[in-house]
Amino acid sequence: MIDHRTLRVALLGAGSVGSQVARLLLEHADELEERAGARLELAGIAVRDVDAPRDVELPRELLTTDAHELIVGSDIVIELMGGIEPARTHILDALQSGADVVTGNKALLATHGAEIFDAADQVGASVSYEAAVAAAIPIVRPLKDSLAGDFVTRIFGIVNGTTNYILDRMDREGAEFDAVLADAQALGYAEADPTADVEGHDAAQKAAILASLAFHTHVPLERVHCEGITSIDAAAIENAKKAGFVIKLLATCERLPAEGDDEAAISVRVYPALVSREHPLASVHGGNNAVYVEAAAAGPLMFYGAGAGGVETASAILGDVVSAARRHIAGGVGVGESARGDQPIAEIGRITTRYQITLDVTDEQGVLATVAGILSQGGVSVATIEQTVSEQPDGTSRARLVIGTHKARELALSTTVERLAESVVVERVVTVLRVEGD
Amino acid sequence: MIDHRTLRVALLGAGSVGSQVARLLLEHADELEERAGARLELAGIAVRDVDAPRDVELPRELLTTDAHELIVGSDIVIELMGGIEPARTHILDALQSGADVVTGNKALLATHGAEIFDAADQVGASVSYEAAVAAAIPIVRPLKDSLAGDFVTRIFGIVNGTTNYILDRMDREGAEFDAVLADAQALGYAEADPTADVEGHDAAQKAAILASLAFHTHVPLERVHCEGITSIDAAAIENAKKAGFVIKLLATCERLPAEGDDEAAISVRVYPALVSREHPLASVHGGNNAVYVEAAAAGPLMFYGAGAGGVETASAILGDVVSAARRHIAGGVGVGESARGDQPIAEIGRITTRYQITLDVTDEQGVLATVAGILSQGGVSVATIEQTVSEQPDGTSRARLVIGTHKARELALSTTVERLAESVVVERVVTVLRVEGD
Repeated sequence: MIDHRTLRVALLGAGSVGSQVARLLLEHADELEERAGARLELAGIAVRDVDAPRDVELPRELLTTDAHELIVGSDIVIELMGGIEPARTHILDALQSGADVVTGNKALLATHGAEIFDAADQVGASVSYEAAVAAAIPIVRPLKDSLAGDFVTRIFGIVNGTTNYILDRMDREGAEFDAVLADAQALGYAEADPTADVEGHDAAQKAAILASLAFHTHVPLERVHCEGITSIDAAAIENAKKAGFVIKLLATCERLPAEGDDEAAISVRVYPALVSREHPLASVHGGNNAVYVEAAAAGPLMFYGAGAGGVETASAILGDVVSAARRHIAGGVGVGESARGDQPIAEIGRITTRYQITLDVTDEQGVLATVAGILSQGGVSVATIEQTVSEQPDGTSRARLVIGTHKARELALSTTVERLAESVVVERVVTVLRVEGD
Repeated sequence: MIDHRTLRVALLGAGSVGSQVARLLLEHADELEERAGARLELAGIAVRDVDAPRDVELPRELLTTDAHELIVGSDIVIELMGGIEPARTHILDALQSGADVVTGNKALLATHGAEIFDAADQVGASVSYEAAVAAAIPIVRPLKDSLAGDFVTRIFGIVNGTTNYILDRMDREGAEFDAVLADAQALGYAEADPTADVEGHDAAQKAAILASLAFHTHVPLERVHCEGITSIDAAAIENAKKAGFVIKLLATCERLPAEGDDEAAISVRVYPALVSREHPLASVHGGNNAVYVEAAAAGPLMFYGAGAGGVETASAILGDVVSAARRHIAGGVGVGESARGDQPIAEIGRITTRYQITLDVTDEQGVLATVAGILSQGGVSVATIEQTVSEQPDGTSRARLVIGTHKARELALSTTVERLAESVVVERVVTVLRVEGD
């Protein structure tokens, strides 16, 4: 056997992903050594409590509560603690000491990515984070390297498995949001506190990371427009279905061309959107993730797979660790993030899509004409309109209008929806949903 | 602007891909410089005939017929000549002179890959070939880097756009092979001589490359079992459809576990296979490609997109060029192919799948019992059997049996099919198709 160099690997965190990473590093040490060209020695695992119960039994002598001591003298530091602090400080310390860093911490990268990438560039170390978006699905590396010579124009991503599981079951079963959520929680597909998933915050962090990579610019998390799926009910799913759509929580990253007084800009947004049932994203079921990328030369590409899971995410971490090890032994400095331009980020009002507007209106003569008039005045062109009338328990009847628009600017659309809401004939604006993927 | 280093890029070949690569290098020089961290100077384009007509107008002063002179002193050499010689010699010369090589030459890699990768390792240069499989779809890099810490167990790839276009149209329209092929040729989806595509040779080259990457071993092209699609007719498509399948030309790379006297081995094969209509590969339409990868930790992943086209393939080439440039300026030696094990490659007789056997039989009492007896004696267990009887022009009637088997070993199955062919009740073995994706 070749006498390989040994690289010290420090692991911070031993939760569902960390414990799988530790197990794979230990069980497959010989195979990984062959592939990396270096022995990957797991020097230690920093945890909060060495006695806490874990998914995988880990050698007691590797556990330590002193992350800082473990980091010093390590060649590769794997950060899987999650959260902002102390993860941020540990990563900066690791980079400062010359280690390459591998992390799956999307919250940290979405908020402090620029600081961390700058620190890495200054010392010539690398920060890898394939696991931060869509678990084991390779998407970070394809955007960073494979498409490095292309011009990404748009990304649509189903990047949150919990919400896809919920929306998919609602779509298949006609069930209501609350019932499916409760079931998803019981089955372990959703957290006890589902806020980060169902309000779109998790997807927004991933959108910020994807947009930064794809557009070679820094997209701060607070510039990502974010709406969750809690307003989506069985009726909305049914309306979508009738019109040939499925509802998916999409993370969309788009280049907007210069137009009139508006300069070219990028738009990064997360919301439940209508997707044609013919689109490849429509057949992404259950907790799976998929990222659909449109590039000027490559055309459309799709990356599909499991979007979560301890061992799945560990696969992405180990891919980054082996790559970091190869770089380490090959010599040379780490290749930093692509040059960061400073592209303007557009407000949500700037985007242009088709819309589906659902209104409860009074069941009177002339209502349709009034609604159509408001839309027309607002510059919103109607493509389809469907009216259904239902008897109410109190004996009155109520009419529901489902309106499909041609492409419109969000600003014009939202102003028009406000006018509709104020109209005496409109009892309630039920939903306003955007169509994506055209 | 930062004063970047300039890297000399030599381009060999100016066909449909090469001319697009040249165009993009020239048109997007500033953007590429920012991303690579180095100026990519197109030093020249080696062609056979400087006066030949081309898809893209190229600066006359860059064209040369002297490839060798162009290569000397270049930092990155892009080989897009195709074929074995002189491409092989030029690549070896380029590596010898210290240049990194980017190529899309699948025929060369499938036959002389080991020689080329060894030459690169010896001088510490890199050979990149994302464009060699599935054009712009990132699959080489994900296998090499993203899954470097995982254990790939199986790959199913739709890696030939022409055959997918033909089979997809046959499936949708119920049309016959010859008619669709002629149309595909008229539309430019198939070559005037379609042999390399329809006989599976192109897919076999890609299978050899994928298996070598995924299993970290050297798979010579001649060890890839290869069958084309010329025997697939409208009736076969119809039989598949009735049983819930679609027929796709698949490149399958699989790890076979040790079993009885047989050691663990890998199987690499190309043939038209039955794929469940529920499988993600079933919805890959037209000339698109998709590679479905199963890994121990990551689970199933799918990579989807256009599998051919000048500008699409150019995207993959430029991604490799930018990565090579980053490596060049970062310093250090190129990271060679992963350590190459020497895993045994199994004969086709060793694989185990389900089968669909279609037989024309005499329309007599007892035929079914005879056929069932032969299958049972051969150790092939029947899952479904369907008989249809049709009147022949000569007044006799003919029966057709479509038999779906449980999993069987190919060796047992093929021996049994031989016995069936010899039986007096069997007039013709129409097709024997394997089911993949279980």
